[in-house]
Amino acid sequence: MNSYSSKLVESAVNELARLPGIGRKTALRLVLYLLKKEDNFALSLGNSLIKMRNEIMFCNECFNISDSEVCEICANPNRTKDTICVVEDIRDVMAIENTGQYKGVYHILGGIISPMDGIGPNELHIDSLVDRVSQGNTQEVIMALSTTIEGDTTNFYIYKKLKDFEITISTIARGIAIGDELEYAVEVTLGRSILNRTLYENTL
Amino acid sequence: MNSYSSKLVESAVNELARLPGIGRKTALRLVLYLLKKEDNFALSLGNSLIKMRNEIMFCNECFNISDSEVCEICANPNRTKDTICVVEDIRDVMAIENTGQYKGVYHILGGIISPMDGIGPNELHIDSLVDRVSQGNTQEVIMALSTTIEGDTTNFYIYKKLKDFEITISTIARGIAIGDELEYAVEVTLGRSILNRTLYENTL
Repeated sequence: MNSYSSKLVESAVNELARLPGIGRKTALRLVLYLLKKEDNFALSLGNSLIKMRNEIMFCNECFNISDSEVCEICANPNRTKDTICVVEDIRDVMAIENTGQYKGVYHILGGIISPMDGIGPNELHIDSLVDRVSQGNTQEVIMALSTTIEGDTTNFYIYKKLKDFEITISTIARGIAIGDELEYAVEVTLGRSILNRTLYENTL
Repeated sequence: MNSYSSKLVESAVNELARLPGIGRKTALRLVLYLLKKEDNFALSLGNSLIKMRNEIMFCNECFNISDSEVCEICANPNRTKDTICVVEDIRDVMAIENTGQYKGVYHILGGIISPMDGIGPNELHIDSLVDRVSQGNTQEVIMALSTTIEGDTTNFYIYKKLKDFEITISTIARGIAIGDELEYAVEVTLGRSILNRTLYENTL
């Protein structure tokens, strides 16, 4: 007995349930919602996924997702091309862009070194970062990876690859988040925030 | 500034975020997952949604979703056609089918009467239920709707439409769930379970 009473529904549920965080019950709920809504929605959803997958490009420079060969950020003449911020994926680009505090360009690694997940340096866009820096137009590389073992490993690997170039290599500041209370801060964060203290006048 | 750096991604995120329970952050996570996976997945997901929406049919008899004009249940010669179980949507059909305890056919209302949501009797497949019963082949109609104000209203509305036919109108048993302890049961459920007690020999 096919418990979905429709192979079409069963196949749609199977496909949706392959998405992370979506189980078969949720998938069925979504499918029923699509069937209740006007025809248009399922079609435009399906088409936008297909179109995206077929037409998406990755920026030649920074590997940001893009609709053209060079992404909007790299193509923007107002961005400082001599500063490269290294991030794990495009969600980090979006988070940093939303702060409005960064005017340089990015380099998206596409992941971080994680032997447990079978991701080594060769799976990431590290060689292309070295290439970019070796062209000699870079002043500073800012490492903006997660503070995890994998992030630290990746930071160190990239640091070793870049340290012989005449550039500044920095990492984003680690410290007590704004609004957090000192007594609840994790010790290592608090320790780092004292070591890397900032001149008060720089925070004004 | 287009914060997604790609109109294709933005449009896919917008479409996914229209689904119930999926916000823009989750939608972006799904889109990035689709972009990381092999090309095939986004295409087969998109195509299965489109194909489902274009080709799905609703059973002429019971309004179950179906790949043909009459659903598998209605077309099955081993089902008792004189017993109709009235349910809200196809999830209820699946739940009842999974018990293996029901051998009759169904009638799917497509919702329940809910003035707050603008759903009146005319939005539901109630007239077609009356038509089915008026053909004279029905012995029993089993109401299997939720025990909510809306469910009770719908039950009563349908009861009034069907009470002049020579059929049995029943509702599924309400009572203490198997495995539940009496002391924690809601009073009205416990009260109903005493009023509608079952002969012990029928539970053997």
